[in-house]
Amino acid sequence: MEYMTALDRLKEYINKMNRYSHVTELLYWDMRTCMPQEGFEGHSDAMTEFSTERFKMATSDELFEMLNELSEPEAFAELDDTWKFIVRRMKRSIDEDRRIPEEFYREYVKEQTESEMAWEQAKRASDFSLYAPHLEKMIAMTKEKIHYVFPDKEVYDALVNEYEEGMDTATIDCLFDSLKKDLVPLVQKILSAKQPNDTKFQRKYGLDGQRRVERLLLDYIGFSFEKGTTGESEHPFTLNLSSKDVRVTNHFREDNVIDPMFSAIHEGGHAIFEQNVKPEFDGTVAGSCQYLGVHESQSRFYENVIGRRKSFWEPIYDKVQAEIPELSDVSLDEFVKEINHIRNSFIRIEADEVTYCLHVILRYEIEKAIFRDNVPVSELPTLWNQKMQEYLMITPANDAEGILQDMHWSDGSFGYFPSYLLGSIYDGMFLDAMMAELGDVDELLRAGRIKDITKWLNEKIHQYGSTRLPKEVISAVCGKEVSSEPLMRYFTEKYTQIYNL
Amino acid sequence: MEYMTALDRLKEYINKMNRYSHVTELLYWDMRTCMPQEGFEGHSDAMTEFSTERFKMATSDELFEMLNELSEPEAFAELDDTWKFIVRRMKRSIDEDRRIPEEFYREYVKEQTESEMAWEQAKRASDFSLYAPHLEKMIAMTKEKIHYVFPDKEVYDALVNEYEEGMDTATIDCLFDSLKKDLVPLVQKILSAKQPNDTKFQRKYGLDGQRRVERLLLDYIGFSFEKGTTGESEHPFTLNLSSKDVRVTNHFREDNVIDPMFSAIHEGGHAIFEQNVKPEFDGTVAGSCQYLGVHESQSRFYENVIGRRKSFWEPIYDKVQAEIPELSDVSLDEFVKEINHIRNSFIRIEADEVTYCLHVILRYEIEKAIFRDNVPVSELPTLWNQKMQEYLMITPANDAEGILQDMHWSDGSFGYFPSYLLGSIYDGMFLDAMMAELGDVDELLRAGRIKDITKWLNEKIHQYGSTRLPKEVISAVCGKEVSSEPLMRYFTEKYTQIYNL
Repeated sequence: MEYMTALDRLKEYINKMNRYSHVTELLYWDMRTCMPQEGFEGHSDAMTEFSTERFKMATSDELFEMLNELSEPEAFAELDDTWKFIVRRMKRSIDEDRRIPEEFYREYVKEQTESEMAWEQAKRASDFSLYAPHLEKMIAMTKEKIHYVFPDKEVYDALVNEYEEGMDTATIDCLFDSLKKDLVPLVQKILSAKQPNDTKFQRKYGLDGQRRVERLLLDYIGFSFEKGTTGESEHPFTLNLSSKDVRVTNHFREDNVIDPMFSAIHEGGHAIFEQNVKPEFDGTVAGSCQYLGVHESQSRFYENVIGRRKSFWEPIYDKVQAEIPELSDVSLDEFVKEINHIRNSFIRIEADEVTYCLHVILRYEIEKAIFRDNVPVSELPTLWNQKMQEYLMITPANDAEGILQDMHWSDGSFGYFPSYLLGSIYDGMFLDAMMAELGDVDELLRAGRIKDITKWLNEKIHQYGSTRLPKEVISAVCGKEVSSEPLMRYFTEKYTQIYNL
Repeated sequence: MEYMTALDRLKEYINKMNRYSHVTELLYWDMRTCMPQEGFEGHSDAMTEFSTERFKMATSDELFEMLNELSEPEAFAELDDTWKFIVRRMKRSIDEDRRIPEEFYREYVKEQTESEMAWEQAKRASDFSLYAPHLEKMIAMTKEKIHYVFPDKEVYDALVNEYEEGMDTATIDCLFDSLKKDLVPLVQKILSAKQPNDTKFQRKYGLDGQRRVERLLLDYIGFSFEKGTTGESEHPFTLNLSSKDVRVTNHFREDNVIDPMFSAIHEGGHAIFEQNVKPEFDGTVAGSCQYLGVHESQSRFYENVIGRRKSFWEPIYDKVQAEIPELSDVSLDEFVKEINHIRNSFIRIEADEVTYCLHVILRYEIEKAIFRDNVPVSELPTLWNQKMQEYLMITPANDAEGILQDMHWSDGSFGYFPSYLLGSIYDGMFLDAMMAELGDVDELLRAGRIKDITKWLNEKIHQYGSTRLPKEVISAVCGKEVSSEPLMRYFTEKYTQIYNL
């Protein structure tokens, strides 16, 4: 049976590719968490070697032929469902990749690096003009790339689809517009209300206790330390070598005790997802979830929907205080007020769960302006500032706290931003579905039964990895179409109460 | 000029080999310091892939031909001194490796693994008989291996030479015998003297403070955190990816505050060596010092010769107490007494600097009994116990605390042990030379000028990496032949004073 041979060869080929990604990922991990400054060259040398090798394997004629062979109707019919998914996916990817002319691709990778460097310099100097020509070039090359790969698709739709497969701007417009309509007034109401007093939090916190609290929180929400570990890096991130080796980082600061706790819960959410994908998917495109909105829904569910409730902290706040004695004069109520403190701030990654949505909508609208309305790059900073004023009633004083703050566009990651908010929108729906099935979430949390919630998410979402598209996840879990209504309702109820609106 | 092309090709080939060792070493590091339990399979898979690849490259026909070409008189004459060294070394290695029949080598690697596993089991069960057949086989295969590679050499001399090039048993016999003659009576005198009271040290110590003390000590002795980093592992070790990325680990325990400090200084000594090898030697056989005795001399110089002096601690003991409040009622004098507490114990790796020598001499004598006198394996436990009684006046109650304690023989590392003691013997000589050139070491240390000592070692020893053989190092630094007299004199003076002998 020839197709069996072909499948075995493919499996072996995938295993070999995985060993190359394994060391490339490990080099990345070590670079961010462990490597001494001067070790950079050695790491970067090895990374170039093994990622180039990996890329060659992923686009080789050998793989192409194997996939073609397995895609023949007779051979394909013999595959089980998982391998059908894998072969279909890999075939699509290699077909797409091979449509990009080699010469163009080399140019593109080179421009990515230059553009990233220009962005870094421009951000440091807070001067958009240093970066503008590179942004223009990245936009032009992104358009060209999409034309090669998807000659029939609208460019921005194709971009969004790369990060959240099956999503399109028609759907997103609908979701974001209806959210924005109610959210802008809510934010304005919150901001005019009485704000909590945060002076008690302005002190110095020891780092050792904060590190122990990270472990406590990760363990509490269901992160497995048999299948995962932690590190420290400038920016928190999650990385998975397989479902059995998932790693999260954090960044501890003496002047801020709250952010690292919520980073721990956020990255913990990503990690719990990856640790619970079916292990038989490991190393294949069926495994590790590649839909950013769905992934983000899980980190944000833990961080915001669950993690910012009083009931979440009730069973553990005394343990947190024991590890961080600086919190001993902060009551649970004061703590909960502060972790739900809404502020209109300039920086997306520092924003609370409510204003965060508006930061994303702003970026989405600007990306549409770029790709759909062809607004010139030179006009983008003004557009940015206008929208900040309109949605958050503040205007950045400079480019660094305005349009230059995020690195995404510098390496061509256009269409990435909307998935952050899609994640929150999914969360509103997941909360409804969970309440319907598990009952009152606050009761569960108060009883310390957060693992029941994790188990529900494992069963409903995590185990499937990439095998279910975002829309399929929503439909399977919630039994309805995506809507932003549940998220808006959640915000309104929660903050009306907290802020006495 | 054809030989230039060959040299460039060789350099490129070496660079590629290095990238493979780079990731193999990194996998090892991560496995010991970071990887979660279930990540083992992924790491071990990748390690097999890349170390096999690396081994193929190191023994390939391509490399063999390049080295032959560069060894031709005309081409060789054009090389600079460093590359002459490198080509000569690599040529010798590949010639040697290629003398081993492939079939035998595969068998040997397989038996190594099995023997290691049998040793682990036997140690757990404290039953030498479980391990004896494997030890017999490893001895036989080691003899066979040496016969292939060095058909004209005496087996045990060849083995010793692998770890400490240029050393032979005639020299070692002379050094060890003269040391033993005086050391056994000194140890017996010390053990009959009044021992310090160590009850104050039997308490629980927090781990965070111990971690900070490790950094303090490493920084103090001259470890560079730009070119190095730390981790935690079951057993402390040093690993270098290059002179710019040298890593040490430690193991912290609540019930022991002293061992981790001296592990830090010990591994720090190894690391300072590697960080200060000329960077142009990086990635070649001229770099990273491969002579175990010389390497060990540096770690022990810091740990024992320097690190156990009162003058070492005088400038920093208050800082140590500030980080480890449990030491606040331990005076500097009490602390110094305890770190020089001599005990006759069963386990080599827990031994003090004096009795340690006898642990090594015992192993050396048993290795000679095996390879020179063909003493049967079944008689080794008894021989071990007799020697323990003779040298340290104690007899192990079981094999686990006797002959089964070390893993070295299980993977065929015969001839390794003597280099530990050679390191200490070199240290006696280095101390004399240093005193003659830098003046009173205690005065330097009391003045906090330990970096002067590090600088002296950098200049005299470290920078040369592997380019000077052990005997050349001694002769260049001390201007005389190796002798154990300085070490014995150092022990006698130091402990006569400490123990009022």
